[in-house]
Amino acid sequence: MTPEEFRTAGHALIDWIADHRARVEELPVRSRTDPGEVRAALKDPPPRAGEPVEALLEDLERVVVPGLTQTQSPNFYGWFPSNGSLASVLGDVASGGLAGLGATWQSAPALTELEEVVCAWLQELTGLPASWRGTIQDTSSTGCLVALLAARERASGHCQESGGLQAEPAPLVVYTSPHAHASVFKAALLAGFGRDNLRTVDVDPVTFAVEPEALRAAMAADAAAGRRPAAVVVNLGTTGTTAFDPLSRIVPVAAEHGAWVHIDAAMAGSALILPECRWMIEGIEGADSLSWNPHKWLGTILDCSLLYLRRPEQVIRVMATDPSYLRSSVDGTVTQFRDWGIPLGRRFRALKLWFHLRLDGLDAIGARLRRDLRNAAWLAERVEQAPRWRVLAPVRLQTVCLRHEPDGTVGEDGTVLDPDALDAHTLRWVEAVNASGRAFLTPAVLDGRWMARVSLGAEATELRHVAELWDLLRRTAEGQTTHRP
Amino acid sequence: MTPEEFRTAGHALIDWIADHRARVEELPVRSRTDPGEVRAALKDPPPRAGEPVEALLEDLERVVVPGLTQTQSPNFYGWFPSNGSLASVLGDVASGGLAGLGATWQSAPALTELEEVVCAWLQELTGLPASWRGTIQDTSSTGCLVALLAARERASGHCQESGGLQAEPAPLVVYTSPHAHASVFKAALLAGFGRDNLRTVDVDPVTFAVEPEALRAAMAADAAAGRRPAAVVVNLGTTGTTAFDPLSRIVPVAAEHGAWVHIDAAMAGSALILPECRWMIEGIEGADSLSWNPHKWLGTILDCSLLYLRRPEQVIRVMATDPSYLRSSVDGTVTQFRDWGIPLGRRFRALKLWFHLRLDGLDAIGARLRRDLRNAAWLAERVEQAPRWRVLAPVRLQTVCLRHEPDGTVGEDGTVLDPDALDAHTLRWVEAVNASGRAFLTPAVLDGRWMARVSLGAEATELRHVAELWDLLRRTAEGQTTHRP
Repeated sequence: MTPEEFRTAGHALIDWIADHRARVEELPVRSRTDPGEVRAALKDPPPRAGEPVEALLEDLERVVVPGLTQTQSPNFYGWFPSNGSLASVLGDVASGGLAGLGATWQSAPALTELEEVVCAWLQELTGLPASWRGTIQDTSSTGCLVALLAARERASGHCQESGGLQAEPAPLVVYTSPHAHASVFKAALLAGFGRDNLRTVDVDPVTFAVEPEALRAAMAADAAAGRRPAAVVVNLGTTGTTAFDPLSRIVPVAAEHGAWVHIDAAMAGSALILPECRWMIEGIEGADSLSWNPHKWLGTILDCSLLYLRRPEQVIRVMATDPSYLRSSVDGTVTQFRDWGIPLGRRFRALKLWFHLRLDGLDAIGARLRRDLRNAAWLAERVEQAPRWRVLAPVRLQTVCLRHEPDGTVGEDGTVLDPDALDAHTLRWVEAVNASGRAFLTPAVLDGRWMARVSLGAEATELRHVAELWDLLRRTAEGQTTHRP
Repeated sequence: MTPEEFRTAGHALIDWIADHRARVEELPVRSRTDPGEVRAALKDPPPRAGEPVEALLEDLERVVVPGLTQTQSPNFYGWFPSNGSLASVLGDVASGGLAGLGATWQSAPALTELEEVVCAWLQELTGLPASWRGTIQDTSSTGCLVALLAARERASGHCQESGGLQAEPAPLVVYTSPHAHASVFKAALLAGFGRDNLRTVDVDPVTFAVEPEALRAAMAADAAAGRRPAAVVVNLGTTGTTAFDPLSRIVPVAAEHGAWVHIDAAMAGSALILPECRWMIEGIEGADSLSWNPHKWLGTILDCSLLYLRRPEQVIRVMATDPSYLRSSVDGTVTQFRDWGIPLGRRFRALKLWFHLRLDGLDAIGARLRRDLRNAAWLAERVEQAPRWRVLAPVRLQTVCLRHEPDGTVGEDGTVLDPDALDAHTLRWVEAVNASGRAFLTPAVLDGRWMARVSLGAEATELRHVAELWDLLRRTAEGQTTHRP
């Protein structure tokens, strides 16, 4: 494709995207596609001769759009906010157009240094310690794996440089909350620690935050048994309830054993741009790494996850390679981000953050996050005041965990009397809401029972949408016959 | 940013990209930016109020473009081809515009199923076994890590489900070529095997391909010493010389020990779309995984790496998680690509391959690769015929490894007489070529001596560019005074 052909096709595609985004509110939020439907519609082999872009736009319209759950809809309340602001999309377009190769500093100095710039911007805007340094990863799953690999190597005296983890004489142990994201457990297993050496620490029954004294006891027991506490993953904003482990009280406990403290703030990290939300990182100076995703609530299009490190050299020692074909005369004076993570080849991801912050401006982004905090508080208040409805966890940011409790399922004091009926009811009305296409929220298990999570924060969600959601939830749940599964 | 603002800004950006691509041949290939220059130019804090897109385009023009080595230039011969075809860029634009969230099948059925479609397309087009299945990863670095983690778990009877690698009684060992890409060694170390358990196997002195009998001996020695051969990484197209390990002869050796065979064909895999290049995967039926990058020679914009698996369930068992918040009614009947790799959240990367293949068409892509094979053969012939020039490795695809040997540095029989002078000469003339801005190639070490790698295959490189390059190399190297460093 020539530049002139790109110009014509590109304009058509930009128009198509603008039109799509303008009507996204009208689309069913949850995709109604059946398994195999998209595959069957698009499986014809690719053509020998090129096709016009119009043929692809038609397939996007006909098959792909209905095949997506509309995360950009104002009625999307599932999982985490997954905003792809149009300002950041433009940055990603520029990244593709420039087609820079992030392999070494030399291959793309601007790719490296603009990443340093935007990481420093966000570092200051979120109140992180000034001496830390950041890099962009694809996701917090990967960020956590990088941190745990560095923790493994630090705790083992760099076993990878000799016999590997398999030569270690005493087990290294990792600690986290049972409410940690699935990716934390996955990262610990991939790093080779083994499930037997992965401890979930007791949490407070009301706040769902890790109990520092329980952590202390667990670490002491392991140490007494000859095992070595290697890492603690602190969760700021858990997936289920947006619970916050008490960082400032955990750091000194970890320090007693020299354990690496990694902070997973994948979703909640966005709130750090609001000074009033910085309470969550009190004590961070004693931690080792923090990961959060602008590609969630903040709204920088996937994939854009920030990993900040107190001492980058501890990661670099684990990740660095120095083959002859990657050397250049400036080595040692520049940052080589290939040594801050797993992949060698890196996209120019800084551009999407750069475009996002500059085109939208900080005031608008901050105002939007504050709007979401207000909307969550508004919804929580309505739920609390409504008969037979319950808010199940403290609303610290933008997540409201709730349940509707039909007659006979829950006692006056909150004791669940008929758990199976309650679960069946919850799953049924949530499914009815999602099947309606008018809103989407995800159920999750809390203390062994299903609940509904309303995860606010889609870029387009205004108070009127939340009010409509609350009407929809009431009508759906309250109008539903309760019956045992 | 509203859809209408996006429409206007998007058109301006598309025009800017088209203009940039049209003049990329005129730009110095290697960036002339000094360390810190981009950072200093762009470090001003982000604005409170949004800026117009024109301000960003001006910074792109003034700072970012000069800050990139122009991998899309027809005069780019560095590292590997790193093509970002404009057709594929459009696919990535669509990905951003749709902003789908690849977390579960349910979050984006089309994202999952279109990935199945394009992986199946390429599987057939490259002649891979029909029963294998593919997925898209960011890079072959990650693909190799995923494969080695699966190998570790298979060889250890799934140690991660109990005591981890640290509880293993006998070391697991990984084998590869000393010419393997740096990411292969990195992956083995990250997977926890340890450098002591990472064997580099002797290669043929002329072809630089692994000697199967040397591999057999190394594996037997380890087994006799109570160690357990766990994985062999076969390199199809090494980074330095594009050497090919003999897959069909390695597979039975690995099979004697039940070792996982992972194939790293990161660059050379593109050639598999040409039936005449399929000799390289003879014997693949007995291997376990193969990784190659459409984002290199084929030209699908970064990041787009294909990982094919003979038995995906062996990777899924290692990578799968099943938290309540990700469950849906279709689980078990659909593909969950989150369990085929490390990150949970995935971009809609299938679109760039889909756009690339459909907009450009297979004939044009194949013709371009054949053009590059012819151009490499043309250059190699010129080098062989020129006095005091030498081709240092067989030209199997598009890489020509060469050296200019001034008087007194190399004897008639090819023996290096003055290695230091030869190295200094090579590094000096390559640097002079790169500093000229008229071409870019990367030096690398082969058998302990520096050489120049001409890695053809940029999308825009025609025979006339290669002829100009050859003129430039001759004039630069032959016109340069030889002196000891």
